[in-house]
Amino acid sequence: MEDALADYLDEFTRRDWQTLDPDDVDDPVRVAVVGLGWFAREWALPGIARSAFTEATVVTDVDADAVETVAVEHDVRGVTPDELRSGAVADEYDAVYVATPNATHLVYVRAAAEQGKAILCEKPLEATVDRARELVAACRDADVPLMVGYRMQTDPAVRRLRDLLEAGFAGDVVHVHATMSQTMLGELGSDHDQWRLDPDLSGGCALMDIGVYPLNTTRFVLGSDPVRVSGRTRTEHEAFAGVDEHATFRLEYPGGVDAMCTVSQNAQHASRLEVTGTDARLILDPAFYEREDRGFAVVREGTRVDVDFDQVHQIEEEFAYFGHQLLAEEPFYPDGDHALGDMRVLDALYESAEMGRAVALGDDA
Amino acid sequence: MEDALADYLDEFTRRDWQTLDPDDVDDPVRVAVVGLGWFAREWALPGIARSAFTEATVVTDVDADAVETVAVEHDVRGVTPDELRSGAVADEYDAVYVATPNATHLVYVRAAAEQGKAILCEKPLEATVDRARELVAACRDADVPLMVGYRMQTDPAVRRLRDLLEAGFAGDVVHVHATMSQTMLGELGSDHDQWRLDPDLSGGCALMDIGVYPLNTTRFVLGSDPVRVSGRTRTEHEAFAGVDEHATFRLEYPGGVDAMCTVSQNAQHASRLEVTGTDARLILDPAFYEREDRGFAVVREGTRVDVDFDQVHQIEEEFAYFGHQLLAEEPFYPDGDHALGDMRVLDALYESAEMGRAVALGDDA
Repeated sequence: MEDALADYLDEFTRRDWQTLDPDDVDDPVRVAVVGLGWFAREWALPGIARSAFTEATVVTDVDADAVETVAVEHDVRGVTPDELRSGAVADEYDAVYVATPNATHLVYVRAAAEQGKAILCEKPLEATVDRARELVAACRDADVPLMVGYRMQTDPAVRRLRDLLEAGFAGDVVHVHATMSQTMLGELGSDHDQWRLDPDLSGGCALMDIGVYPLNTTRFVLGSDPVRVSGRTRTEHEAFAGVDEHATFRLEYPGGVDAMCTVSQNAQHASRLEVTGTDARLILDPAFYEREDRGFAVVREGTRVDVDFDQVHQIEEEFAYFGHQLLAEEPFYPDGDHALGDMRVLDALYESAEMGRAVALGDDA
Repeated sequence: MEDALADYLDEFTRRDWQTLDPDDVDDPVRVAVVGLGWFAREWALPGIARSAFTEATVVTDVDADAVETVAVEHDVRGVTPDELRSGAVADEYDAVYVATPNATHLVYVRAAAEQGKAILCEKPLEATVDRARELVAACRDADVPLMVGYRMQTDPAVRRLRDLLEAGFAGDVVHVHATMSQTMLGELGSDHDQWRLDPDLSGGCALMDIGVYPLNTTRFVLGSDPVRVSGRTRTEHEAFAGVDEHATFRLEYPGGVDAMCTVSQNAQHASRLEVTGTDARLILDPAFYEREDRGFAVVREGTRVDVDFDQVHQIEEEFAYFGHQLLAEEPFYPDGDHALGDMRVLDALYESAEMGRAVALGDDA
């Protein structure tokens, strides 16, 4: 099996989307970073800096102290959110990365679109489907490119897994398991990020914040969209009052392939995606968190091969793709319409949890 | 963590149920083996022989050639099914092990009960809930002890996992994943076992034959029963026409704990049980097949410990427990009523799959 695998997995971390030589890039895409929570500071800003195709030039946040600290640390221009939205320093950036609480994505994306800037918006796209639709429409109306921050889609391990599935290496996919959990209050810590507990700002917690990973990653690797879903949510602890602390869900893909998913904001850390086919199992474990090395295993004919590969900086890959596609004038795969698909499913999962029955995803759902 | 774990996992393979000294057993329980399919020949007969508390003395099967071969090989008495049922050699055995196609359990169990013999019946108990109820009633009416062949319940790895959960080592259980698959037609091979494809004989395929493992094992380790279930079945290949080739199901346990399960008779071999709690994850992988070593891993505070332990012969453990409890005049845990719980759930899963909605398990369901 190892020989056949090698054919697929040689140059594991290759960027199959890259046509421009990073060494030839003199003017990387200048990015304004909107929202300086834990992820933006610890991961996005370093990722933007590492990527040859991007550089951060402007930062903003509702927390003026955070803006000042980050501006000094990264030697970038710090502005107020009002200044960002008004376009006061619009000549200092080509693109806007929006990493604010979900319910505030729309206001920043709309402002950036009106400024004619390219946009990378974090997922989930907004706090509700309707607002997400408005967001996508704003970008379309302004004719600006919109990418959505599905960092799994530019992760080499996920792309190689998808390659193997597409090549039929696993035979027909039979079913999928995915689990992702963390002790959110312990692992993230900072109060700055606790907007996830406010349903008005987040639109939900375990499903919106974590469920989107198993959901979007299975959509990506299977190359199709769920047709019917069933979800259950549960809240045990006072800290999570008003939002979902835990969730389980089944995504029914075309052909009867079910993805059985669990997510939790308050459980022992777990991060695993397992695709079982008639001929092989493909396992990512760890799978989903930016802060862990990815594991990639293939089981075929009873033999398990743990693939040893160079770990990448996941957010560098994401921003490299973002910057590259803009410079190459190529479209994004995870665009607004793709992200709306997740929003519809998340909405259907909350509906399913409330109604106690499965919910079909109509063409126009 | 390893110190705390050691307290629970020392003497990993201890038989916590054993009070009799195997060396003191002069007269082991004499077992008549009914049904000489692959499992009985490859696993049950060797297990009975290895166990100090049991010995095989009589075998029967509808296949006279198999009877003759096995009788010679194991130096036991071979009889016809009629002879077994009529009690013609009833003085040569104390107990009857029934490993025939599901829909024929009842006839053999009833005969054995009428002979006053102790019974170990394979799971699932019968092909339908009604017949399973009749089976349990026959044993109760005859006042004979009935154990059901849940070999996972006497497996040390499963018992230690349950011990850890009971001791609160994992905190509160949040959710469970379980998967079990094989290429049935390839891995088992023998035509002798293909009754599993006949719905009249089996009552179903993927769910009945394999689904019972994730179902019963989660019941056992969680120490509770599902209150509501949702299942989906699917058949792709002609060989499985009339039965379920693949199935996925969600078992809703009290307190909102969901077990997300997948099983297949036609997928790459998989065998995994994963319990995620607020404080730890407990993983059996491989978990379910008699023909593989079990793996046992504990993840707590982000640290994974793979427990190294002596592998047991799983069927020896099962028969040792069966013989021991009879000799010690102690009851069985996996008894007929316990097994009826599985039958009700399996029935509800098929109903759920047919109706396309979750099914509640009533007290009297």
